[in-house]
Amino acid sequence: MTNYVYSFIEGDIKIKALLGGKGANLAEMMKIGLPVPSGFTITTEACNQYFHDGNTVNSEIKAQIEKAVIQLENQTEKQFGGDPCLLVSVRSGSVFSMPGMMDTILNLGLNDENIMSLAKSTNSKRFALDCYRRFIQMYSNVVLDLPMYQFESILEEVKEKNNIDNDQELTEDHLIELIKEYKNVVQQGTGKEFEQSPKKQLYAAIEAVFKSWNNERAKIYRQINNIPSSVGTAINIQMMVFGNMGDASGTGVVFTRNPSTGEDRLFGEFLMNAQGEDVVAGIRTPNPIDELASVNQSVYDELCKASRLLEDHYRDMQDIEFTIENGKFYLLQTRNGKRSASAATKIAVDFVNKGIISKEDVLKNFDLAQVDQLLHPEFHPEKLASAKELTVGLPASPGAATGQICFDTQAAEEACEKGEKVILVRIETSPEDIKGMLSSNGVLTARGGMTSHAAVVARGMGKCCVSGCIDLQIDEEKRLLKIGEHELCEGDYLSIDGTTGKVYLGQVETSSANLSDEFATIMAWADEVSDVHVLANADTPQDAKKAIAFGAKGIGLCRTEHMFFAGDRITDMREMILSQNEEGRKIALNKLYPYQKEDFKLIFKTLKQQPVNIRLLDPPLHEFIPKEKGEIMKLAKDLNVTYDRIEKITEQLTEVNPMMGMRGCRLGLIYPEIYEMQARAIIDAALEVTREEGFVPSPEIMIPLVGNEIELSKLRSMVEVIKLALDVDDELGEVKIGTMIEVPRACLVADKIAEHADYFSFGTNDLTQMTLGYSRDDSGTFIAKYKMQKILDEDPFQKIDQAGVGELMKIAITKAKTKKTALKIGVCGEQAGDSESLTFFNSLGIDYVSCSPYRIPKARLAAAQAAISYAVVEEDQTEHN
Amino acid sequence: MTNYVYSFIEGDIKIKALLGGKGANLAEMMKIGLPVPSGFTITTEACNQYFHDGNTVNSEIKAQIEKAVIQLENQTEKQFGGDPCLLVSVRSGSVFSMPGMMDTILNLGLNDENIMSLAKSTNSKRFALDCYRRFIQMYSNVVLDLPMYQFESILEEVKEKNNIDNDQELTEDHLIELIKEYKNVVQQGTGKEFEQSPKKQLYAAIEAVFKSWNNERAKIYRQINNIPSSVGTAINIQMMVFGNMGDASGTGVVFTRNPSTGEDRLFGEFLMNAQGEDVVAGIRTPNPIDELASVNQSVYDELCKASRLLEDHYRDMQDIEFTIENGKFYLLQTRNGKRSASAATKIAVDFVNKGIISKEDVLKNFDLAQVDQLLHPEFHPEKLASAKELTVGLPASPGAATGQICFDTQAAEEACEKGEKVILVRIETSPEDIKGMLSSNGVLTARGGMTSHAAVVARGMGKCCVSGCIDLQIDEEKRLLKIGEHELCEGDYLSIDGTTGKVYLGQVETSSANLSDEFATIMAWADEVSDVHVLANADTPQDAKKAIAFGAKGIGLCRTEHMFFAGDRITDMREMILSQNEEGRKIALNKLYPYQKEDFKLIFKTLKQQPVNIRLLDPPLHEFIPKEKGEIMKLAKDLNVTYDRIEKITEQLTEVNPMMGMRGCRLGLIYPEIYEMQARAIIDAALEVTREEGFVPSPEIMIPLVGNEIELSKLRSMVEVIKLALDVDDELGEVKIGTMIEVPRACLVADKIAEHADYFSFGTNDLTQMTLGYSRDDSGTFIAKYKMQKILDEDPFQKIDQAGVGELMKIAITKAKTKKTALKIGVCGEQAGDSESLTFFNSLGIDYVSCSPYRIPKARLAAAQAAISYAVVEEDQTEHN
Repeated sequence: MTNYVYSFIEGDIKIKALLGGKGANLAEMMKIGLPVPSGFTITTEACNQYFHDGNTVNSEIKAQIEKAVIQLENQTEKQFGGDPCLLVSVRSGSVFSMPGMMDTILNLGLNDENIMSLAKSTNSKRFALDCYRRFIQMYSNVVLDLPMYQFESILEEVKEKNNIDNDQELTEDHLIELIKEYKNVVQQGTGKEFEQSPKKQLYAAIEAVFKSWNNERAKIYRQINNIPSSVGTAINIQMMVFGNMGDASGTGVVFTRNPSTGEDRLFGEFLMNAQGEDVVAGIRTPNPIDELASVNQSVYDELCKASRLLEDHYRDMQDIEFTIENGKFYLLQTRNGKRSASAATKIAVDFVNKGIISKEDVLKNFDLAQVDQLLHPEFHPEKLASAKELTVGLPASPGAATGQICFDTQAAEEACEKGEKVILVRIETSPEDIKGMLSSNGVLTARGGMTSHAAVVARGMGKCCVSGCIDLQIDEEKRLLKIGEHELCEGDYLSIDGTTGKVYLGQVETSSANLSDEFATIMAWADEVSDVHVLANADTPQDAKKAIAFGAKGIGLCRTEHMFFAGDRITDMREMILSQNEEGRKIALNKLYPYQKEDFKLIFKTLKQQPVNIRLLDPPLHEFIPKEKGEIMKLAKDLNVTYDRIEKITEQLTEVNPMMGMRGCRLGLIYPEIYEMQARAIIDAALEVTREEGFVPSPEIMIPLVGNEIELSKLRSMVEVIKLALDVDDELGEVKIGTMIEVPRACLVADKIAEHADYFSFGTNDLTQMTLGYSRDDSGTFIAKYKMQKILDEDPFQKIDQAGVGELMKIAITKAKTKKTALKIGVCGEQAGDSESLTFFNSLGIDYVSCSPYRIPKARLAAAQAAISYAVVEEDQTEHN
Repeated sequence: MTNYVYSFIEGDIKIKALLGGKGANLAEMMKIGLPVPSGFTITTEACNQYFHDGNTVNSEIKAQIEKAVIQLENQTEKQFGGDPCLLVSVRSGSVFSMPGMMDTILNLGLNDENIMSLAKSTNSKRFALDCYRRFIQMYSNVVLDLPMYQFESILEEVKEKNNIDNDQELTEDHLIELIKEYKNVVQQGTGKEFEQSPKKQLYAAIEAVFKSWNNERAKIYRQINNIPSSVGTAINIQMMVFGNMGDASGTGVVFTRNPSTGEDRLFGEFLMNAQGEDVVAGIRTPNPIDELASVNQSVYDELCKASRLLEDHYRDMQDIEFTIENGKFYLLQTRNGKRSASAATKIAVDFVNKGIISKEDVLKNFDLAQVDQLLHPEFHPEKLASAKELTVGLPASPGAATGQICFDTQAAEEACEKGEKVILVRIETSPEDIKGMLSSNGVLTARGGMTSHAAVVARGMGKCCVSGCIDLQIDEEKRLLKIGEHELCEGDYLSIDGTTGKVYLGQVETSSANLSDEFATIMAWADEVSDVHVLANADTPQDAKKAIAFGAKGIGLCRTEHMFFAGDRITDMREMILSQNEEGRKIALNKLYPYQKEDFKLIFKTLKQQPVNIRLLDPPLHEFIPKEKGEIMKLAKDLNVTYDRIEKITEQLTEVNPMMGMRGCRLGLIYPEIYEMQARAIIDAALEVTREEGFVPSPEIMIPLVGNEIELSKLRSMVEVIKLALDVDDELGEVKIGTMIEVPRACLVADKIAEHADYFSFGTNDLTQMTLGYSRDDSGTFIAKYKMQKILDEDPFQKIDQAGVGELMKIAITKAKTKKTALKIGVCGEQAGDSESLTFFNSLGIDYVSCSPYRIPKARLAAAQAAISYAVVEEDQTEHN
């Protein structure tokens, strides 16, 4: 026989899946001897059975409930519907926290008769009447689905008529009148009298709570939080205790430690003669918890003891609700307390130091989403509460920013020079906008997904970015931004939150980033357990410094194209592209060579002997050509060519699907002089650093977009010929030559490609694009809708698609290792900061991941989590063998 | 010891790889008793050894050559450099025919001394002098690399000085003078006297021929024809025979059957007292071969007998060269004769009827390229010879067309209405241009590859198309087309050849297509042996009729989007897209529904009970929105919306990489009303046809771009719900629901997808695009360069990429069949007309291929070839087991 009902004295935390979080914790508290009002839990299984039986509580479950009610009567020595009367609360309790999403009913069990029993036992007729009044209102709303405003307006009328401001002032007569009127509402709304049988009340309440699992707000909440609908909710039936029975009663909420700072001191507040809802409502101001000692020292001591006990028992900071009924202390709830990122780090380190938890526990449970809070500014929560939210886009790069709207680079640079904070607003960004992004505090785009140009570059810069915000209507000509009915001009203020994707009107104050010693300690622990190295994507000497500061073990991706945008270089680059013959290209490339070499030298000097993996030119050439009329005119003048010529070449270079066009190694093979210049610059830079600094740097040269072994073998030879010609083998030793694995075909012929590669670096962004056919610039909209429709669980650019992309990676690694068992393998993609993805990468046996500097701390933690969870998997397998 | 030299009496056709085609055939003719001048062949191995030894003929090869020369002297009873003097021809002869690509030297062995021996034996001093003169000229050009014009100009001077028009009129004295002057040229050009030693002449000639294997034109020819450089050339050294020794001598070229019509009658011409080059030069008009009987009956009989013998021996129509020396008949060459496509079909059927070859032989050897000639008009070869070739693009859709240039649909339609032939010239085409394409005889685009929109649509229409012609400079505003230095206005004439990709100035006459009974016979044989069905891509009732006419076994791909372009429908479609809410879309879709239903009905009526596989809407919506100002203005007026609104929506719909954007089933899931309308139209159409016609059609519904099993399961349910609501199961039975497999991920999770699919149709075009990362609209340029650089052997859109795309197909089929062993599997892509690709598909066990109607005959033949070659592979494997 299935056990659908557990008394609190039967349950414990191990069967949380059946009891829900709240029920399991109540049982657990009771088990360790803490004072909890008696009660029982109806399981999530019963909930699913209820839906399965066509929204009916079947006889088996009913029988178990009735048995539990009798048991509860015995435990409490009260009678359900009798005297002394047993009143209960009926509360939903899911396995996953869904605060406020489902319904609760208090004071259930009251009726016209036993109200006098309550009055007697509490010595207050007014109290009993008030309970009954509240119960009718709550029950009618939750169970009978009558609108709350009907009751509220009657209450307001009575208060007005009697010139009363505060509910507390209602007299017994007022309450009797209210109860009469409330019952009328019920009679009129349902055609029936208010239910007088406590049993029937109970079943009706149980059904209402089960049904509330599928109300709209609960469904939406689950969708947003990826909670499966199939888990169902449990229901807790618990004896009522009252904090509002007089001055010896009260209620409060405490955290066992300070949730903002992590300080080891009880933190919270209490209110005497009040129920929990009064604390929340904010009509009376609660008192700081310290003051409870002076009100009732013994209760305060009990609270402190319970608090310590719970923290030790759960081995985590707790968020506790308590009630004092006539001087008797009850615990009503405990759960792991939410805390700020910096509190989380401090608490974790303190717990480890005290031996309560292990380093591994800290790493395993660290909420990666909090890392962003530590690294980036946030909005002040209180300021945010009053800010006007305009719309939501994709949370493309974390952090918060506020500033004046600028519609292009020029405006952004000008405003920045004047000392203004800037939000750059663009339909989408292109490499031309990089200077504008540098001048801005945040970037907001109408188009593009989580891995669009704006998103990738902003993350690299550590700037906040909201992308793919489809509600934006940008009129660049008129310098106007429309969002819904709001029209904003250039210079108006806007605030964006790259962690949530929200866009706010006006200025919202931010607090700055906060990197503590405790965080550094945790990061060091993470590195101890990780199996994979975390390297950085860094394109400039500045990025390289940042990467080292964030603890990168080298550079896993140095994109050479970004170097071509700084200063005058872009003009030389454009001259190269516009040349259209080899000779002209070589002249322009010779001008670019010294810039590249100098950049490489600075990067090598920063990285010392750690690896620097340099990817040769990858993007299509048209990305370097200006698109705006003014810029084209300027370029025509600078290079002394006609406007028409530039337009014509731009048109020739335009591609329908540039992602799958003339880029990557295709450029290198068709215009070999470009890669030749780059290879020469890398080798010369390494040589000069060796001679100037006395250490040998570790450059690696990576060929992008290889799909065919001949591409790689030809370009490898090209680099080798250059190296041979420079005669540097004695001084530099081997320079590794590897390839990006980012075209699906490369995975399928990885064995052949491996023969020409010293290492593989999976470019999981591009590999995801092509394997799924999701253009990262265009898929934002449909990925969002796919998630809502549950076609996708996750954005595959955030969490690796194991069944598709992951399968290709497996095929590639298996094939490659048949040819080269020791081939070094890395992953370079957005998913490097996700621990589930990293666990998967770990299972493939990769050596390193590479990500943008600001993601490195997250990736280091994720790598540690992956190593721990992978070790568990491995152990399981070993046991089974 | 390696045998580097074979006498003609030693060799035969089996060692053609060593002897080259010409040498092997000479030996073979000798073997079957035909009169061939004696000689020997230096093998291709010797050629490769020559290159291997650093362009030196090593001593071993030299020894074998010298032995062969002595043997030849014995056979001919002449002396090399002695009296009677043995003269030889030195001719290259590769395994693959490379006509005119490499060098030949005649009359080798002559010098100042033995010229008198030749004069004596031929009784003509003039003849001997003329031979010597020609020899010096040929040798100097080929071996000594002296420019031909130096000799030509001396000859012209002498002729002018002596007032001579024709070489025949040169006297002995003139020839002596010429020889003297020629020798002077040699002396001045090389600093040495003209070589007098026949042996040294011979070695120098051999080296020159070997080297000519690597001259520029030979290299380019091999590149174009995919002949590997590694095979090398053989050299044939053969006793000279002279057709120009007087009136009892002569020369001729015959085909054993008529190469234009296939008629079983000797076809060719001869010239008495002439050498082969005289026939070719065209100075004297040769006589029809029939007339040889009246000149020399016995030689004519000998020729007829040899002709029959050779045809029976080679079991193919032969192209023969012969020489008559003083009444003696010699065969100098035989090879399989080139023939027109219609001749090929007639000859093949005749041969089968006579029992010379089997049906299988015909199918196996049928040149698929010739199928296009049978289905499409061609340029008259003689007219083409004098046409001015302007440039070459990609041969995107076969056939030849000539017409007036039009730059847009409107111009094309207007010209067409006036009865003009039109060539539509566009930078690239989009669905808006379809009406213009319909009004045109051919389409020429500056951009786009073999599978670009222009190419695919033109092939579907059976219209000639040259795409990706990068030399075009189109100025649509000025209505000007520049190709190199030629400037053409709208209305000027241009001719394009979609089989070769060539573009010609002005009008070139075309001959029309020719489908004979014999061809129908061969197609029937093909279907007998094929393992796979050939279905058609057909989008309209017209296409469906064409498909049936070409022998399709059903429709494998009916693209519903093309139906939305005809007539006013495009306006309704645009209204749907511009609606931007479900209600508005439904109103517009209701207008489209009757059109779709009617189209489907007509198609079902045409196809009867054969399957019609209908793909729901696939392309991104922006393809339906006009891009030109005038059209946008018209649409705004038609739909009563503002110009700005259309522009704004167009901008919203614009994608960076539309190929991987909002299209296919993504549309169907996000705007379900579109697919709902389509599904309803299909089912209703089937129902009405059943009721009206008394037979049940076989519609199949295909979901495009599926990459995730949930996409398919959701859309499958949608269709099933509609079908259920219409309650048609009794009347229609099962309606199969399948999916395109075109996203790489779909292959990797094919087992899961198979659970929801009744059939798979591999979309190998899109699968190739995404697996290789080659945008079909943009890859034209780099694929061409990759082929030149030998990074690619073949265009993967023409021939399936077995290692990459093919591997994914294998994975998909293996996985899918674990779930559904009997799953029907098809391929729908450009590669369906390539027999090597089909052989591969055969090996995967697919059930059908689908291609555009005009490709069906080719695909049916290719399928037969694949079945035959696959049977061979299977047999080999069985033998090995």
